Amino acid sequence: MKAEVREEIYLTARKWVEEAGEHIRRKINSPLVIDTKSNRNDLVTTMDRETESFFVTKIKETYPEHSIIGEEGYGDKLDNLNGVVWIIDPIDGTMNFVHQKRNFAISVGIYFDGVGEIGLIYDVMEDNLYHAKRNDGAFKNNEKLSPLNNNVVLEDAIIGMNHFWLCDNHFVEEKTMQQFVRTIRGARTYGSAALEFAFLAEGIMDGYLAMSLSPWDIAAGIVIVNEVGGVTTNIEGENLDMLEKNPVLTCNLCLQEKIIEFIKEGRK
Amino acid sequence: MKAEVREEIYLTARKWVEEAGEHIRRKINSPLVIDTKSNRNDLVTTMDRETESFFVTKIKETYPEHSIIGEEGYGDKLDNLNGVVWIIDPIDGTMNFVHQKRNFAISVGIYFDGVGEIGLIYDVMEDNLYHAKRNDGAFKNNEKLSPLNNNVVLEDAIIGMNHFWLCDNHFVEEKTMQQFVRTIRGARTYGSAALEFAFLAEGIMDGYLAMSLSPWDIAAGIVIVNEVGGVTTNIEGENLDMLEKNPVLTCNLCLQEKIIEFIKEGRK
Repeated sequence: MKAEVREEIYLTARKWVEEAGEHIRRKINSPLVIDTKSNRNDLVTTMDRETESFFVTKIKETYPEHSIIGEEGYGDKLDNLNGVVWIIDPIDGTMNFVHQKRNFAISVGIYFDGVGEIGLIYDVMEDNLYHAKRNDGAFKNNEKLSPLNNNVVLEDAIIGMNHFWLCDNHFVEEKTMQQFVRTIRGARTYGSAALEFAFLAEGIMDGYLAMSLSPWDIAAGIVIVNEVGGVTTNIEGENLDMLEKNPVLTCNLCLQEKIIEFIKEGRK
Repeated sequence: MKAEVREEIYLTARKWVEEAGEHIRRKINSPLVIDTKSNRNDLVTTMDRETESFFVTKIKETYPEHSIIGEEGYGDKLDNLNGVVWIIDPIDGTMNFVHQKRNFAISVGIYFDGVGEIGLIYDVMEDNLYHAKRNDGAFKNNEKLSPLNNNVVLEDAIIGMNHFWLCDNHFVEEKTMQQFVRTIRGARTYGSAALEFAFLAEGIMDGYLAMSLSPWDIAAGIVIVNEVGGVTTNIEGENLDMLEKNPVLTCNLCLQEKIIEFIKEGRK
């Protein structure tokens, strides 16, 4: 992808993200229609749908040759990542959106032939935009993010992870994860994958571990985390399939081997 | 305690809390001396000590007849709560303070003959002050907080709790807590007890469950949560001993019985 083409797409995407965020903030106290999807806690609202539809309409008008993968299904059905693909979560952390009216994000990753070129994560209520272009560094608003500290040991690490890692699950023995929680300095659960990627990139967490994330949960985050020297793989250290759900580990590079080793011990 | 006396103490306490917060914000990027206390993850910094010392000096000057319980030990050694007692956590969420430079709070509860009269929780970096006086309602900054929704079922509840509830522990069987996590809508872990009380009072969580909290972690929160109709007890529904550590459940009243029943099932 040519630099000037990418820059134009980045500026346009950024403008749309900010517009969508502004709209959500304006409507944050309006009544919501809330439905459920795969289970009773998998929430979706009119705002998720409207926001995705806003992006899809804009993209189709402006870039008819681009493809779209979106959480709410307004995008395309893709079996490859050829060309320019927008990977969009209109509201990442819908449970927080519904219950807390904060702690959710718009997440937009833009890939070219499968390579993440642009990442935008917008913490709407805090008005914080995390953004990156491949090889151009990552930013929180106008502030360039520093490379992650490469001298963190697991014993001093703060790791984002939900409580299901400690429940009976088909990935890893609970006892191993109990030991993991006792080894690290602290575990946090914020309820938005996109924000947990952003917090890692910002250096306020050292890793984030999730059992099953969709491409739209991680597409933007991967690009941003890459730019500060972090790394994102599945929980065995392998590349992610960006057309499928994956168990995901994103972390400070210096912790990756240690965390994967830990999990491997308890793999079922 | 007379209303006008309480009002004067409230206004003074509030001014000191805001002053202390302003000082912390100014120094947030200065180098820190970090020590550990009971274990390697029980952190304390010069800022915790300075801030508590600021409060203790002010209180001793202004109200020499008042007593003080403070996390860092600059207060008094008390064996009762007679008279006016300030219960202070200068930085609640020190791990967040150190690693995140946000998500921590100053917590000040003021009790009269054992009854919580004033609660102040200051989310320093967000500049949000949660405050309440007994029978006078609770506020977030200038906005009065609404009574908690009394129609929440456990299946729709967001509960703050750390991951140790799902590790082998001496309170409750892990399997029971696994079931608990699967029953509720979502679990969150923010790493500051005071803020979790504040989030409950605000209605963005429905409960918060902690294994071992000290009086300074909860003194302010109890007063604030009371004012929106929430309830705070130990995990068996009994009154807390405000001179000791306690396992704590603070929640929406309509969930209390259900949560206690759940835990009782798995009590060791």
